[in-house]
Amino acid sequence: MSEAIRFLPPRPAVLSRRAAIIADLTDLLPADCLVHEPRELVPFETDAFISYRRLPLAVVLPRTTAQVAAVMRYCHRYGIPVVPRGAGTSLSGGAIPQEDAVVLGLSRMSRVLEVDYANRTAIVQAGVTNLSISETVGVDGFFYAPDPSSQLACTIGGNIGMNSGGAHCLKYGVTTNNLLGVKMVLVDGTVIDLGGKHLDAAGYDLLGLVCGSEGQLGIVTEATVRLIAKPEGARPVLFGFETSEAAGACVTDIIGAGIIPVAIEFMDKPAIEICEAFAQAGYPLDVGALLIVEVEGSEAEMDTMLAGIVEIARRHDVKTVRECQSATEAALIWKGRKSAFGATGRIADYICMDGTVPLGKLSYVLNKTSEIIERYGLRVANVFHAGDGNMHPLILFNANDPEDAAKAEEAGNEILKLCVDAGGCLTGEHGVGIEKRDLMRHQYSEAELAQQMAVRSAFDEDWILNPSKVFPLEGRA
Amino acid sequence: MSEAIRFLPPRPAVLSRRAAIIADLTDLLPADCLVHEPRELVPFETDAFISYRRLPLAVVLPRTTAQVAAVMRYCHRYGIPVVPRGAGTSLSGGAIPQEDAVVLGLSRMSRVLEVDYANRTAIVQAGVTNLSISETVGVDGFFYAPDPSSQLACTIGGNIGMNSGGAHCLKYGVTTNNLLGVKMVLVDGTVIDLGGKHLDAAGYDLLGLVCGSEGQLGIVTEATVRLIAKPEGARPVLFGFETSEAAGACVTDIIGAGIIPVAIEFMDKPAIEICEAFAQAGYPLDVGALLIVEVEGSEAEMDTMLAGIVEIARRHDVKTVRECQSATEAALIWKGRKSAFGATGRIADYICMDGTVPLGKLSYVLNKTSEIIERYGLRVANVFHAGDGNMHPLILFNANDPEDAAKAEEAGNEILKLCVDAGGCLTGEHGVGIEKRDLMRHQYSEAELAQQMAVRSAFDEDWILNPSKVFPLEGRA
Repeated sequence: MSEAIRFLPPRPAVLSRRAAIIADLTDLLPADCLVHEPRELVPFETDAFISYRRLPLAVVLPRTTAQVAAVMRYCHRYGIPVVPRGAGTSLSGGAIPQEDAVVLGLSRMSRVLEVDYANRTAIVQAGVTNLSISETVGVDGFFYAPDPSSQLACTIGGNIGMNSGGAHCLKYGVTTNNLLGVKMVLVDGTVIDLGGKHLDAAGYDLLGLVCGSEGQLGIVTEATVRLIAKPEGARPVLFGFETSEAAGACVTDIIGAGIIPVAIEFMDKPAIEICEAFAQAGYPLDVGALLIVEVEGSEAEMDTMLAGIVEIARRHDVKTVRECQSATEAALIWKGRKSAFGATGRIADYICMDGTVPLGKLSYVLNKTSEIIERYGLRVANVFHAGDGNMHPLILFNANDPEDAAKAEEAGNEILKLCVDAGGCLTGEHGVGIEKRDLMRHQYSEAELAQQMAVRSAFDEDWILNPSKVFPLEGRA
Repeated sequence: MSEAIRFLPPRPAVLSRRAAIIADLTDLLPADCLVHEPRELVPFETDAFISYRRLPLAVVLPRTTAQVAAVMRYCHRYGIPVVPRGAGTSLSGGAIPQEDAVVLGLSRMSRVLEVDYANRTAIVQAGVTNLSISETVGVDGFFYAPDPSSQLACTIGGNIGMNSGGAHCLKYGVTTNNLLGVKMVLVDGTVIDLGGKHLDAAGYDLLGLVCGSEGQLGIVTEATVRLIAKPEGARPVLFGFETSEAAGACVTDIIGAGIIPVAIEFMDKPAIEICEAFAQAGYPLDVGALLIVEVEGSEAEMDTMLAGIVEIARRHDVKTVRECQSATEAALIWKGRKSAFGATGRIADYICMDGTVPLGKLSYVLNKTSEIIERYGLRVANVFHAGDGNMHPLILFNANDPEDAAKAEEAGNEILKLCVDAGGCLTGEHGVGIEKRDLMRHQYSEAELAQQMAVRSAFDEDWILNPSKVFPLEGRA
């Protein structure tokens, strides 16, 4: 992949005008909204896909939609690439800049503008963190459903760019299912509104199109999101199985029976050990794979759903069924799961894949993944949103050994191709970014890719918005 | 609106080649897939928006995706407009043809191709009727959720074109929330696949964009849809109120409390009387407005949710609360509701509006609607999906009186503008079609409309797909 990860060559007309561009941006924005000293640009040179980095030309940190519009109007006029950035937590390199780009950071637009319970909506600025929405409305018994593991840091703007998910999306859907409207600055600085506090849209669903478009169709500055009432109660339950295959088959049968709990999370033995060592969550260590199944509602509702799930789990020779007994225990169980990536980072370097597969193929893909990893002589920890078929193999390697790193990348590519070949998809919630750009040809035919690129051009004719991402660099029109 | 309803002028280059086009289509398709005798074209001259009609140039009724592709390749080469058609039940004129158009009817592509319970999916051809999906999987305890009132006749292809809804969409979402993939023929005959049996899509969400695009971005020939397990039980409950205002405020408070039943349907007094006279559903006749609230799940779950709803209804001085006692009674209650349009047609001509409003504005918009109707000296019956804020005022008039018809159209336009001004939208589930085309300027700014049209052009540069629909005829690029 290293070879494929190269960036587009910088636009000479932009690089050569660096000083003038910075002077122009200084005129456009308050002094504290512009960063251009090389030393100060370093925090913006990469995101959570840390393998690759580039210092941008400058960083702007606007406070208002009008300032975003002014920057876009300017950059559009002079053909200057713009890379939008939320909190920089992208795992696919979605926020990695390039030398000729202005990074447009939304972190200062972090206010909750309105909470409207009658319509179960909140209007927030794009730089608001995911968790702070739920924190704002939690006191009134509501929450915002999508819950990426990075929710403490990641922003709603970034969530919209990547159509982010999370453990609780099995029941409540991912970002696109919880987004009702956006205010967006088009590439030329025009401000448009898409959607709102109402069902449907007249004409095309541009809101749905924008969600997951990785910052290439415009800059979202405000979002109207759906609020959901907190359930009466919620209870994570641990199901331990002999093998990953049995756990995977159990998930397939739960969903196949039409039972939709709030979450079904999967951990294989390496993941259990890594997370337990970090969080002391109380996970059973004598099993080959673990499911965390969360049910919610009244006690009676939880009991009913759980009974159906236990019955199915028994058919797959479940070894351990442990209902958590307290809120503290529940919080620990989720802490262990949500810190899986960080905990893995303590013991090794890793890359995190993000393929999705049809539920019926879960066990098959888990088995094949093991085969691939063994063939490369690597190790893997699987910890993922099983109910959604959204797999996250964490491939462990030594970043100081270039050969090991190359093997990890190759194995990762094989696993993603495996997901696609099984009827799945390259990405569930992390986006394509730089990471999976060249695998798009494995997912799509030339006509399908061409149609996506034509849509992109209908928003951004000169491809200045986040230009190195999503589409293979070769073969662009 | 009559003036605005005029069609695009026919393309002379197409009209003058009529005989040659029919000969060419005869070569492309089996003989029984082509209709071109003027007498036989009559059934295709309009849809359920019967105010306007045009005989098309020809009708093709292909049986395979390859035949659809051949027709598109041909029509694209010669710039011949193509109007896709499902069952012709569109209430906004989405399937009304024009003199220079080939109608592409999908009614013969009506097979369920695959049912896959492990993935809770069905793959169906575009001409399958909505209800037949649920009929196919019902025996195994599953159903397809969106349930337009026309579900006995309307096709999944048409549902995708209009992003159709229905009474039970409050809990389960509309078509876009239940659609996982499509096979689609692009305007030049290229066949692409969007989505599939997996979460998310790599790159842009073209599937979401296509859903609701009114046949202008391509011809959907197959769809992968989500199946849902039937609930343990379901129970419609009737809530009668003194006034429409009280019923509307009650809906706002139910949803505002975060309670999401399966359905909340609203009927005002005229609608109750019309539907009761037709269906003898047992609706109370001594109330000013009625809510049909359906709860589902186990008996305990239904009781719990219902208790919460009854408590809120009491705050709005509910007069009648009647739980239905049997499956027969439940079926009758729904029969009355679902036949509302037909029942209204027995007593008067009507046009059915389809605006959506934020839930918090329900009572306000109901009041204002009454004012508008009174000002025009007309009558209205309101029967709609209240939980979604999707209003359906049925404006009654005499179609044989041109002045009355004009007044009804004007009043309808005022009501839709009212919905938009209240923060809502021109359409909930019927689409823009011909009917609301010229109101798009009231919903959108020039930049917003221009962006939608640019996206359309990215799929269909020459605008041959369903060209008279969605966008105002004036001001197109």
